[in-house]
Amino acid sequence: MIRPVKNWTTTTKVDIEMVLYGILGVDEKSQTVTSHIWVTKYWTNEFLTWNQSDFCGIDEVSVPKEKLWIPEIIIQQDASDDGSIHEDPWVIMRPDGSMFTFLRQRLTFTCRFDLYKFPFDSQVCNITFISMNTVRSLVLGSAINGSVLMVTSTQFMITQGEWGLKDIELVSGNITNGWRYHSTLSYTVTLDRKPFLYVINFIIPLVYLLFLDLASFSISVDSGEKFGFKVTVLLSISVLLLILKDILPSTEVDLPVIANLCVAVFTLVWLSVLESMLVSFLLNLDPCCDKESKKIYMKKDINVHKEAEEENGQVKPEQSFFPLGKLGDVELLKLILEEVKAARQEAGCQKKPRCYRRVATIIDNLFFVGYLLTFVAFVMHICFGWMNL
Amino acid sequence: MIRPVKNWTTTTKVDIEMVLYGILGVDEKSQTVTSHIWVTKYWTNEFLTWNQSDFCGIDEVSVPKEKLWIPEIIIQQDASDDGSIHEDPWVIMRPDGSMFTFLRQRLTFTCRFDLYKFPFDSQVCNITFISMNTVRSLVLGSAINGSVLMVTSTQFMITQGEWGLKDIELVSGNITNGWRYHSTLSYTVTLDRKPFLYVINFIIPLVYLLFLDLASFSISVDSGEKFGFKVTVLLSISVLLLILKDILPSTEVDLPVIANLCVAVFTLVWLSVLESMLVSFLLNLDPCCDKESKKIYMKKDINVHKEAEEENGQVKPEQSFFPLGKLGDVELLKLILEEVKAARQEAGCQKKPRCYRRVATIIDNLFFVGYLLTFVAFVMHICFGWMNL
Amino acid sequence: MIRPVKNWTTTTKVDIEMVLYGILGVDEKSQTVTSHIWVTKYWTNEFLTWNQSDFCGIDEVSVPKEKLWIPEIIIQQDASDDGSIHEDPWVIMRPDGSMFTFLRQRLTFTCRFDLYKFPFDSQVCNITFISMNTVRSLVLGSAINGSVLMVTSTQFMITQGEWGLKDIELVSGNITNGWRYHSTLSYTVTLDRKPFLYVINFIIPLVYLLFLDLASFSISVDSGEKFGFKVTVLLSISVLLLILKDILPSTEVDLPVIANLCVAVFTLVWLSVLESMLVSFLLNLDPCCDKESKKIYMKKDINVHKEAEEENGQVKPEQSFFPLGKLGDVELLKLILEEVKAARQEAGCQKKPRCYRRVATIIDNLFFVGYLLTFVAFVMHICFGWMNL
Amino acid sequence: MIRPVKNWTTTTKVDIEMVLYGILGVDEKSQTVTSHIWVTKYWTNEFLTWNQSDFCGIDEVSVPKEKLWIPEIIIQQDASDDGSIHEDPWVIMRPDGSMFTFLRQRLTFTCRFDLYKFPFDSQVCNITFISMNTVRSLVLGSAINGSVLMVTSTQFMITQGEWGLKDIELVSGNITNGWRYHSTLSYTVTLDRKPFLYVINFIIPLVYLLFLDLASFSISVDSGEKFGFKVTVLLSISVLLLILKDILPSTEVDLPVIANLCVAVFTLVWLSVLESMLVSFLLNLDPCCDKESKKIYMKKDINVHKEAEEENGQVKPEQSFFPLGKLGDVELLKLILEEVKAARQEAGCQKKPRCYRRVATIIDNLFFVGYLLTFVAFVMHICFGWMNL
Amino acid sequence: MIRPVKNWTTTTKVDIEMVLYGILGVDEKSQTVTSHIWVTKYWTNEFLTWNQSDFCGIDEVSVPKEKLWIPEIIIQQDASDDGSIHEDPWVIMRPDGSMFTFLRQRLTFTCRFDLYKFPFDSQVCNITFISMNTVRSLVLGSAINGSVLMVTSTQFMITQGEWGLKDIELVSGNITNGWRYHSTLSYTVTLDRKPFLYVINFIIPLVYLLFLDLASFSISVDSGEKFGFKVTVLLSISVLLLILKDILPSTEVDLPVIANLCVAVFTLVWLSVLESMLVSFLLNLDPCCDKESKKIYMKKDINVHKEAEEENGQVKPEQSFFPLGKLGDVELLKLILEEVKAARQEAGCQKKPRCYRRVATIIDNLFFVGYLLTFVAFVMHICFGWMNL
Repeated sequence: MIRPVKNWTTTTKVDIEMVLYGILGVDEKSQTVTSHIWVTKYWTNEFLTWNQSDFCGIDEVSVPKEKLWIPEIIIQQDASDDGSIHEDPWVIMRPDGSMFTFLRQRLTFTCRFDLYKFPFDSQVCNITFISMNTVRSLVLGSAINGSVLMVTSTQFMITQGEWGLKDIELVSGNITNGWRYHSTLSYTVTLDRKPFLYVINFIIPLVYLLFLDLASFSISVDSGEKFGFKVTVLLSISVLLLILKDILPSTEVDLPVIANLCVAVFTLVWLSVLESMLVSFLLNLDPCCDKESKKIYMKKDINVHKEAEEENGQVKPEQSFFPLGKLGDVELLKLILEEVKAARQEAGCQKKPRCYRRVATIIDNLFFVGYLLTFVAFVMHICFGWMNL
Repeated sequence: MIRPVKNWTTTTKVDIEMVLYGILGVDEKSQTVTSHIWVTKYWTNEFLTWNQSDFCGIDEVSVPKEKLWIPEIIIQQDASDDGSIHEDPWVIMRPDGSMFTFLRQRLTFTCRFDLYKFPFDSQVCNITFISMNTVRSLVLGSAINGSVLMVTSTQFMITQGEWGLKDIELVSGNITNGWRYHSTLSYTVTLDRKPFLYVINFIIPLVYLLFLDLASFSISVDSGEKFGFKVTVLLSISVLLLILKDILPSTEVDLPVIANLCVAVFTLVWLSVLESMLVSFLLNLDPCCDKESKKIYMKKDINVHKEAEEENGQVKPEQSFFPLGKLGDVELLKLILEEVKAARQEAGCQKKPRCYRRVATIIDNLFFVGYLLTFVAFVMHICFGWMNL
Repeated sequence: MIRPVKNWTTTTKVDIEMVLYGILGVDEKSQTVTSHIWVTKYWTNEFLTWNQSDFCGIDEVSVPKEKLWIPEIIIQQDASDDGSIHEDPWVIMRPDGSMFTFLRQRLTFTCRFDLYKFPFDSQVCNITFISMNTVRSLVLGSAINGSVLMVTSTQFMITQGEWGLKDIELVSGNITNGWRYHSTLSYTVTLDRKPFLYVINFIIPLVYLLFLDLASFSISVDSGEKFGFKVTVLLSISVLLLILKDILPSTEVDLPVIANLCVAVFTLVWLSVLESMLVSFLLNLDPCCDKESKKIYMKKDINVHKEAEEENGQVKPEQSFFPLGKLGDVELLKLILEEVKAARQEAGCQKKPRCYRRVATIIDNLFFVGYLLTFVAFVMHICFGWMNL
Repeated sequence: MIRPVKNWTTTTKVDIEMVLYGILGVDEKSQTVTSHIWVTKYWTNEFLTWNQSDFCGIDEVSVPKEKLWIPEIIIQQDASDDGSIHEDPWVIMRPDGSMFTFLRQRLTFTCRFDLYKFPFDSQVCNITFISMNTVRSLVLGSAINGSVLMVTSTQFMITQGEWGLKDIELVSGNITNGWRYHSTLSYTVTLDRKPFLYVINFIIPLVYLLFLDLASFSISVDSGEKFGFKVTVLLSISVLLLILKDILPSTEVDLPVIANLCVAVFTLVWLSVLESMLVSFLLNLDPCCDKESKKIYMKKDINVHKEAEEENGQVKPEQSFFPLGKLGDVELLKLILEEVKAARQEAGCQKKPRCYRRVATIIDNLFFVGYLLTFVAFVMHICFGWMNL
Repeated sequence: MIRPVKNWTTTTKVDIEMVLYGILGVDEKSQTVTSHIWVTKYWTNEFLTWNQSDFCGIDEVSVPKEKLWIPEIIIQQDASDDGSIHEDPWVIMRPDGSMFTFLRQRLTFTCRFDLYKFPFDSQVCNITFISMNTVRSLVLGSAINGSVLMVTSTQFMITQGEWGLKDIELVSGNITNGWRYHSTLSYTVTLDRKPFLYVINFIIPLVYLLFLDLASFSISVDSGEKFGFKVTVLLSISVLLLILKDILPSTEVDLPVIANLCVAVFTLVWLSVLESMLVSFLLNLDPCCDKESKKIYMKKDINVHKEAEEENGQVKPEQSFFPLGKLGDVELLKLILEEVKAARQEAGCQKKPRCYRRVATIIDNLFFVGYLLTFVAFVMHICFGWMNL
């Protein structure tokens, strides 16, 4: 079909009007956006004009598309299926030769995502209409100006899903594949993610768990719940990782803040488990030094008994209790005293002496301070990452 | 194809009859509804009439669609694939020029969802038929009136899935893109969600877990199970978050009630874990103040021994037990008494004194009351949110 | 294309033969069944007959479909894509004018599911062929009779998936949209679910967990494992809820038995956790009443010391041990006796007195009996629900 | 289009060559295999021959498909979409009338799976080409013989996914729908599953957990970790059930071995939890029998005091300590002895007597032996199931 | 359509230019890559030339594709749907007879993946264009040379998803199906996976958990938290297995390193749980040997009492306390001493003697050393696997 111009050097101007009906979905993994658009193309056919009064005032005629030249315009980022396009089979003509046709499309287009601030990110995507003709013969323009564009889009947008339309802008330009220039019309669509589900589902639980771990420093090791508590916190974070896997694509060289958050929280909790193990280990060392003191005691104990044996001469070994009968009150009391003392000392041994405990306490406190500082610095870093950049 | 009217200013009336055969699915994330509809279009072709008696009484003729003018009517919200439409290739004509054709479609249409009351929500969706002709030449109407509509839809509806048909209404109107007016026919479909799976799978477990946490105030800190219990409750809520992620889209600026519920429950349980840690920490402070008293005791202990040494002069240090032999009954009994007392005091130390425990108990009770009040207020808020609004 | 009858009032009989090749999937959420069918349509073209002997004995000719009238028959429940139909482009003609054509289709059809007995359910689905012509001009029949139907279907069915073919029946009838009657042929397909995965994956674990909870009544509260055990059982049920979410649609007003099972198990386990907390709380009350008795003892203790002070006059307060030196054997022994007694009493205090324990035990036993009865009644109800209805 | 034979009784031979390019996926739930195949059809057109030398030596001409008769051949198991077939639009003719055409297809075909040995299973699937003509007019053959077939398929197979090609065989035959016979060519494809992911992800963890449970018999009930340990093992198995749900379809009347494995492991672990509860319960019964002995003691205690009262006459009840002052050394020592004895007896009561413990130990050991035997028998059964059958 | 050459033996050269617009997804399970490509085909039509000056300088004409011969070129690995190809319906001609046409395609192509180094893998995939004509009549070439290719692809590539484009190379060649040679043009695309999500989500948690298990050797068995801790670590790994299942296909005979990692970590943790059970079991054996010593004691105890009875003649059995009154101080003190000793011995029995403990400690230390060595060797093996190979 020949381009409908009387002189072939005349450039045909095609005006495009795109209305964004809805954002159906955004796939971060494949970096595509699925939307629902209506596109109207306006142009002029220099041969098809009529005098309205000659034809009973008819001011509009529909003609099947295949009878006429239709500007071939594609979308550069389009990765849709064929079946997603519903083209109106008619072209509508006006007496002055202006014609228009329109199509509806469930458009899936590729878009370079920047997920650094996920889930508080905005994405800027281009929908670039490219004429298949060269720029000399066909120039694209916009049927409506930019200020009206945003208003109509907001008005027509049906869906209110995860993504809100923040801004939509128009840029005309050219594109070249080296030796041929094509006219382009770019709609720059800025989408705003509504982050609440991610906040509720991932960030809040993660931060809460970090707080819990911070608070778990107050649990004493002796309570027998510290490790269990901390490892359950770690398990909860593992469960949250199952959520992260589904929402975050493995995309960035430049790590998203939320990935930092996740790794940092996991690492902090992990370090605090390790530290509490170290502390517990040090506290358990004390009974050893205690054992040494006990050994001394035991030696003495033996000595005492030896002494007793020496003193009483005929005293049989501890195992045979008969000779006790020959002891006096005083010796018996002495033995009782020793027994009671020994019992108390053994019981008291439970309360570990302070040799390693002090070291453990110092480590614990130092670590806690470090943890707290890291925590504060980290939270500030995260907030800074999400707020300012 | 020319619109089949003898005078081009005559407006063609097209009657539409839509039967909703089933609701196949609702995707909250992409804000689309997939349904199965049958649409019949009725109109009159002024040129194609015949006298039934002239043609052996033939009262119905099928003609291939491509031979005749067919009104071009689209659905505004349609985001289906091409392959989902099954158009009858025939138009059925009657002697009086009335014709009809019908199509079946697995229609996926966009709909603005309001998930505030999820999962007890009803959604109001529009299926708007728009004529591609202007309103001057083509006007849409309904083949059946509204009261019949609901009856037939209920009768034909095959599926009984998550969504029930609550109401279906008809509105005729116009739509404009600025300078052209199109006739529209809107079916306003009200869908009722059947919430039971969400109630069973998410709300009941969540509320049960909240109750468990409330009840866990009765566990004494000394049982060594309190933290483990509470953190396992928290872990269970994390598991439920995995469910929430799948059922709720990240859509609303205005938070759905269920999201409030989820965050509130998580926060309440989290706070109660923190509070129980604080209480436990305070209770653990007591042994410290105890240690101070013990220090006094130990000093005394030393004094006693010093005294003993002073009294007995030649008494060797505690470590050497030999001199005991020279003590009388009374002194021995005194020493035994001291030992027994010391032992008892040490054991008694286990029973922490009341200094911080009182503070802890007060905090615990205050928090419990606050928790309970919040809980009641919150449940009322949730129920109010779901019931009334 | 005109219906190939010599007299237009002759009714054409179209025989249909459907072979079910496989059940590819059943989607309870969207209430659709995906199957693989082969359909053959037989009818007679009164104009296309030939004398076999005149044409070298040719007894079969293939003609492209578009050259001939083909009965337009659709499936009422069909919600497939266009691409899923593979129509044979040829019609095969026989000398007597009988013709047939066939098509293969991956048919997705809607079906009203009854999930009450899930996963032990059978579903009865209709595949209704409807002629697009009125019943006066076209009547549908079956090419094979019902008894053969089941045999061939069982023979041809390739897949042996989750659903087995239990029965397939044929019903002829009419359908009307008010003023036009269409002939129909319904295949009523009864599908039998093979429930084993659901039993293994969901029901057995659930019932096992309920048993565990029942058995956990035998754990004594003092073991310090009861709450942890029970809450872990609850957590396991939460994990199973993740499975339920995937297998059960949110469909029924009339709750499926399995949903009852799930809610009941969750509730029973939850109640038993609450009950064990109550019991534990009551047991913990006892030390309080014990404390009161201790207070009395302490008062006495003070009295004793006062007495001792009174008796000895110059006796210094307990803290100063010096005056002991002046006590006689008897007094010292008395003091030792008191100390030993006090120590024993304190230790004995650990063994809580019986005041609340009895209440707790009664509650525990009553609850256990109630729980057991509920459990038995419930199991019977479930089994009854699955077996008989 | 007429079959290109000079005498209509001549049978056309169509040779088929199928190359399997890849196995893209196997869906056990819907019992379909998705593959990527190239099919070339060779046949002879008796009318289209030319003398190569008359036409400048042209030895190959491409003709659009729609101009010539193409054998209509379908795949019986084909459940693909239309869009998955890429037919070459040209037929290539040779001077001797031999022609060929080829098509690429992403073929989804149904296959009866036998999952008994999952995941160590091989599946035997048929891809049956059926001519739409009767066997009298068209016979299918293979363009290459069977021995070459396997070689070329292995050579061309691009993908190396979960399924390896083990064998591919050719069978020619006939199929009938009762009164018409069609020629068929069956490719019998044997696929070998590579099970490693299932082994790593499911079987190894499951068996490891079973071992852990077996080993947990060595944990003493007194450690206070036994139930927690076992129920956590059970919870881990529940988590693994989440994996099973995704990999195994609910298909077999004849249970897959892996389902047996899963149920058996769950049941064994569950039984061992119940058993350990029974043992723990029996051990807790002992204190009761102890209480009885204590009652005797307490009675004696009372007697002693009564005796004491009788002996001393004026002795006040235990609560008033004053009269002690009047006791002699001996009586005091006796009382102290009693107190110490009572204390020891009470403490010793902690070490439960052997009455029920013996029963418990016997049950424990018997169960352990039974468990071990079951375990060994079961492992042998599983291995036997996977290896031999 | 005849190939547009004046002499049929002339070979037509078709130049191809492929621009890779995006990598939309990689499916390891089905071993396919989904990409978005633009392909331009350049060739010369010897019949369609014109003198530009004769036709007003027209230097470019668009002709519908169906009017001209278009080279039939397919992609060998193409497994896309039909609907994914958007062919430009026009061919653009230049005055010298050179023509070009282009198409956009969402190309899904099969690729043999090597997942050994997953997730640090690069995949080398071929996109092979094959002419359907023989190599004698049509030869494929590249419109741009290799060095430019990489530059333009990097420049045009929109998406920045999980896969980065590392290299793209061109190879021309021939392919044969035995007796026909076809010209091919291969684009060898090297893709680099960006592994961070897998590192964060799977590898880091796994390694951290292994470290935790290593550190848990420091927890003493007596703390009553060791088993709980270790089994919770095992449970966390089970949860991570849920992630592995989704990211790794069951493909390799040659196990991926990450599978080794996963199995090794699971096995190490599992072994350490078993080992700690063994140690705990050995430690629990000690009380048994203690019991024997106790038996000796008890025998002595009885002897003592017998002695006492013998000495005192009239001494009643222990149960009757009356005769105590007749004992002297000394005997009473002796009895008290025995009681206190017995009590202490019983309490001391808690502190198990060293008979098995030494064995346990040796095993523990040996295992720890072995574990540590395995751990180090294993980490080195993994790193070696990922780094070097």
